[in-house]
Amino acid sequence: MANIKSNGYTLYFGNNALLSLNSFLIKRNYSRCFILCDENSLQHCLPHVVIACPQLGKADIIEVESGEQNKSMETCTNIWEIFLEQKADKNTLLINLGGGVISDLGGFMASVFKRGIPFIHIPTSLLAMADACLGGKNGIDFMGIKNSIGTIARPEAVFVCPPFLNTLDEHHVLNGWVEVFKMALIADKKMWNALSDITQVGDPSAFIFRSLELKNNIVLKDPLDNAQRKVLNFGHSLGHAIESLVMDAGEDILHGAAVCAGMILESHIAMQKKFITAKDYTEIKTRLIRTFGPMKTIPFDKNELLEKLGQDKKNKAGTYRFSLLKKIGACAYDVEVNQKQIFKAIEAYNKA
Amino acid sequence: MANIKSNGYTLYFGNNALLSLNSFLIKRNYSRCFILCDENSLQHCLPHVVIACPQLGKADIIEVESGEQNKSMETCTNIWEIFLEQKADKNTLLINLGGGVISDLGGFMASVFKRGIPFIHIPTSLLAMADACLGGKNGIDFMGIKNSIGTIARPEAVFVCPPFLNTLDEHHVLNGWVEVFKMALIADKKMWNALSDITQVGDPSAFIFRSLELKNNIVLKDPLDNAQRKVLNFGHSLGHAIESLVMDAGEDILHGAAVCAGMILESHIAMQKKFITAKDYTEIKTRLIRTFGPMKTIPFDKNELLEKLGQDKKNKAGTYRFSLLKKIGACAYDVEVNQKQIFKAIEAYNKA
Repeated sequence: MANIKSNGYTLYFGNNALLSLNSFLIKRNYSRCFILCDENSLQHCLPHVVIACPQLGKADIIEVESGEQNKSMETCTNIWEIFLEQKADKNTLLINLGGGVISDLGGFMASVFKRGIPFIHIPTSLLAMADACLGGKNGIDFMGIKNSIGTIARPEAVFVCPPFLNTLDEHHVLNGWVEVFKMALIADKKMWNALSDITQVGDPSAFIFRSLELKNNIVLKDPLDNAQRKVLNFGHSLGHAIESLVMDAGEDILHGAAVCAGMILESHIAMQKKFITAKDYTEIKTRLIRTFGPMKTIPFDKNELLEKLGQDKKNKAGTYRFSLLKKIGACAYDVEVNQKQIFKAIEAYNKA
Repeated sequence: MANIKSNGYTLYFGNNALLSLNSFLIKRNYSRCFILCDENSLQHCLPHVVIACPQLGKADIIEVESGEQNKSMETCTNIWEIFLEQKADKNTLLINLGGGVISDLGGFMASVFKRGIPFIHIPTSLLAMADACLGGKNGIDFMGIKNSIGTIARPEAVFVCPPFLNTLDEHHVLNGWVEVFKMALIADKKMWNALSDITQVGDPSAFIFRSLELKNNIVLKDPLDNAQRKVLNFGHSLGHAIESLVMDAGEDILHGAAVCAGMILESHIAMQKKFITAKDYTEIKTRLIRTFGPMKTIPFDKNELLEKLGQDKKNKAGTYRFSLLKKIGACAYDVEVNQKQIFKAIEAYNKA
């Protein structure tokens, strides 16, 4: 495994990633550093970062409580106030140390503060390592709509240090595997086959690296998300809608669980459209449920679900546009889907 | 006068600009259009736009009260809510019809809504026509700091229609001339000479066009504001600080008036540093005061002024960095300036 060259920045991967970070910081000579973290990355990861990079001992630490509900404008305004009070200038570095919530939030805050200050990601969850840290997309949730305010902004670098996975509980590791399965389904049948039983996977590093490579190939072809990059959104049209509805009801749901359900539902639609066979659909559904456990019945009011779906960024001119599998290992984008197909998929899901 | 090709988009200039807009809209076929305006552009300009572009008769109109104090996060969140309620999608166009406040605000809102929806500017003030509409910079004021949250984002096109100047009062026309004088001072001595008496200028179109050409040449060399583009900020380090302080005190000040004072002050610093001669300084000061009228004494507490200056985006590692004239028609950037030089300039200004 080597480093990955993305769109104007490098992703450093491996057990020595924090040493690469130290060299990077010495070379760049930022006027000051802020480290954004949550209570988990603060306790379990920050000490390792500071040991590897002694100059970060004097960095300003900003702690945000973990959880998607804090990926909000309120959190942003609180932290921008800190930046202004502390006189952060255009040469101040923001280090996002945490999972997907931290990188989404920190990437957005940095990209608009003083029209953009430099930032880097140090992902600490499997989900952030395998997916969120690469590609420059960031965002916050607004009015109950996932990532409805955000930018696509280039980090200065990304440092993926797989040993941080040891700080996670099983629940959060599983959550991250969902995006690895998604990458396999949309782009790599061989990886899908290799993932047949993740309980047999010892060190997930090779799968994380392969996911990043696959994602990078797609992102480089369409950095601004106008065309083929949309395939990365497979499972996320319905996944995000479900996630938003559960959050609106004041309940917790991991992003991975919602996307897992979304992938099953959207595979059903792909089957209805005869993009994939019934056999493929059954294989996908069975494998996902066996690996991630059955998702509870989706109890949502159809109109509420459609309301959320109506905010999906891929929609165009009042029609729903999904990314749908063409087969295991390949995905189409901008496919028009109608309400009937969506309801049919949900009914099948709830019956199963 | 022709159109101007900027960084990936075209600026259409002239009395027929609204016809170009009509062709543009027919070609692009956006799923829907929102028009952002203030009470003035709504009353005086929107009817002309709709006559030239009949399809905009069914556009959604969003009115923001005029004034810099509305270039705020509160305004943004109110309008993003409208966007979500109205199901604005990624193919929705935002048309910013107004002065610099409208283009700054609308450009920012569009650039982060759903990670960026298309937007265009139709500037209606001299300031917006000659300066703000070109270059992609946008932003809102946050915690009393001008443009402290924003992005650099590419509009789809800009349409400059000089006849809209007839809708402005004399006060607002003068306000816009300040940025034309700034362009002359930093980049074109010939234009500076030609501007010796603007009361003799009948149609200002040629000066607006020349300002845009000069600005475009600079922006194309440094679109992301990392180097020579900073010369465009001449007069704005102290200008923005003064503007913020006056606004904090609950008083009104036109951007142009603040920048005019800023240019005189920063020219004094350039003279202290022997970048320009005493004769040049006197010529600049005399001409600006004769044209724009004397600015009132700057009564501000030195510490408050330094506090505001400390937030300037050009600062680096705790030092003040200004863009200072090298001579009339040329400007240096990233010049380190100290408190003593700043105070000396203010004392000279207040004595005059």
